[in-house]
Amino acid sequence: MTYCLAMKLESGLVFASDSRTNAGIDNISLFCKTHIFSLPGVMEIVVLNSGNLATTQEIISTLKQDIENKQEGNLYTLESMFDVAKTIGNLTRKIIERHTRRDSGTDFSCSLLVGGQIKGEVQKLFMIYPAGNFIEATPETPFFQIGELKYGKPMLDRTIHHNTSVEDAIKCAIVSFDATMRSNLSVGLPIKISYLPDTKTGENIPSVLSYTIEEDDETLNRIRKQWKEGLRNVFKSIEAPKWW
Amino acid sequence: MTYCLAMKLESGLVFASDSRTNAGIDNISLFCKTHIFSLPGVMEIVVLNSGNLATTQEIISTLKQDIENKQEGNLYTLESMFDVAKTIGNLTRKIIERHTRRDSGTDFSCSLLVGGQIKGEVQKLFMIYPAGNFIEATPETPFFQIGELKYGKPMLDRTIHHNTSVEDAIKCAIVSFDATMRSNLSVGLPIKISYLPDTKTGENIPSVLSYTIEEDDETLNRIRKQWKEGLRNVFKSIEAPKWW
Repeated sequence: MTYCLAMKLESGLVFASDSRTNAGIDNISLFCKTHIFSLPGVMEIVVLNSGNLATTQEIISTLKQDIENKQEGNLYTLESMFDVAKTIGNLTRKIIERHTRRDSGTDFSCSLLVGGQIKGEVQKLFMIYPAGNFIEATPETPFFQIGELKYGKPMLDRTIHHNTSVEDAIKCAIVSFDATMRSNLSVGLPIKISYLPDTKTGENIPSVLSYTIEEDDETLNRIRKQWKEGLRNVFKSIEAPKWW
Repeated sequence: MTYCLAMKLESGLVFASDSRTNAGIDNISLFCKTHIFSLPGVMEIVVLNSGNLATTQEIISTLKQDIENKQEGNLYTLESMFDVAKTIGNLTRKIIERHTRRDSGTDFSCSLLVGGQIKGEVQKLFMIYPAGNFIEATPETPFFQIGELKYGKPMLDRTIHHNTSVEDAIKCAIVSFDATMRSNLSVGLPIKISYLPDTKTGENIPSVLSYTIEEDDETLNRIRKQWKEGLRNVFKSIEAPKWW
């Protein structure tokens, strides 16, 4: 399983992904699900993936190879994030279709979160469905999740708004991942957090900042502990119902 | 959609169910999903259902009719909760099989939580699957959920143990339902809470106590507000990560 989260905030784009992949509960591996395409000063694109690992690896490898081969229409030649989403969406649909034609009994599908900025444009964030179509984040719906999303959604619903600070957004992402990892063993560390600051100009595209939360990360352990103790205290402080 | 929760605690059995049923988002109705079978002093059985409404209504109606007709093997003639679970499980499987034979394209399946006590026995709690088989709650796994279970599970995972008090269990159930109702519109009020105290004897089976939380219930609103504000304060009090 996988859990990926991306947010489009006033202050920039925030991404988080776990690293556990399983083909059955007895076959668990580590794979990074965050992929960064960077053409310094021109474009920064972050792609998170969930679903069939062979499919998502084929998508990412194709995108990289097309760039290396200077293929027409490769990511680094595109001029808008909308074109990036269309390109990745089409590729996703084609790959899934090709495999499904040969074996309709296996689930080859995947979903992707694609966010970033291209010179001359504002930042954008898209969620790409297995059919290749996609939706875009707006101030009203500033975050998208893919994979094992439900355990960690209530805290996001309460906290994340378009104008939430990047610090609070990352704190909330950690709380959301903590809840998910507690309730689903197939979502696990390391968690990769990425942040693309919004410079509010179409120029001077900054680089993506990244941090990987490993087992025994001090910040993770501190937030987990404070959150757990805080929840326990709030719960204790609430008077229980007395109906009978 | 539906959300039902049942817990087997030292102090007794606690049940909670919502009341919203939907056949498509534009066809929403209210149906109580808690059914109580009571033979005072002899047995108290609580059945919660999720899934296809026609199937679950047919199960409950058949159980009731068999009791009225004094049918051989009806619930009130059974001498163990294990037999109750087997009887309801078999009925569930038969009804789902009969409908599926005629129309394999529709999902007729359902799940049930069945808990209670029969004179001479200790309290028991079962989760019945669409195949008619079932599992029993133990001190290590004291709660079961059916329906839209993920949004409300993290708080239960943190709080509910075999020796949690009934007051805390009900408070936690309300928090769990609140999270679920916020994140999934198809789970909705009223919530029916039921409690069968454990007298620790196989004799003197008490009656099931029930309370229905309607819109504008003072206790619900108070707990919701205190929980929301408490969460916000805990979240604020945690120092954000500083990585960059």
